[in-house]
Amino acid sequence: MKVRVNVVLKEGVLDPQGKAIGHALDVLGFHGLGEVRVGKTIEVDVPTENEEAAVAQGEAMARALLANLVIEDFSAEVVA
Amino acid sequence: MKVRVNVVLKEGVLDPQGKAIGHALDVLGFHGLGEVRVGKTIEVDVPTENEEAAVAQGEAMARALLANLVIEDFSAEVVA
Repeated sequence: MKVRVNVVLKEGVLDPQGKAIGHALDVLGFHGLGEVRVGKTIEVDVPTENEEAAVAQGEAMARALLANLVIEDFSAEVVA
Repeated sequence: MKVRVNVVLKEGVLDPQGKAIGHALDVLGFHGLGEVRVGKTIEVDVPTENEEAAVAQGEAMARALLANLVIEDFSAEVVA
């Protein structure tokens, strides 16, 4: 079963990469954009066929390694 | 309206970052994991209230800047 962990910067944490992307998009002709935030997704094939167990394992992996809980939030969902 | 662009490496493209994460997770006690793939998400506040227009703008931004179409696939969806 495949679980996807989404990791995003917490509200209020400065996102310089997002700012740079926003600026580049404006230069490319996409005007009037608001805030741009960048996150990452980690898709992991976990060895369980139980949805709840897969999500729980995804959350455990996020806490252990994938997310920096000081500045990042995460969510986990089953994708396949 | 907020649109989220998901960018992932195409099937078959080597993902060394994913491999490293998979190895680290195994060391941390998450055994038996399958493939690990890493992607990125870009959330952009676009100046439209039309869902289709927002998704179309997200896709245009992906083609213009956010995704490397040689090795990456993307999808766009409205999130708020």
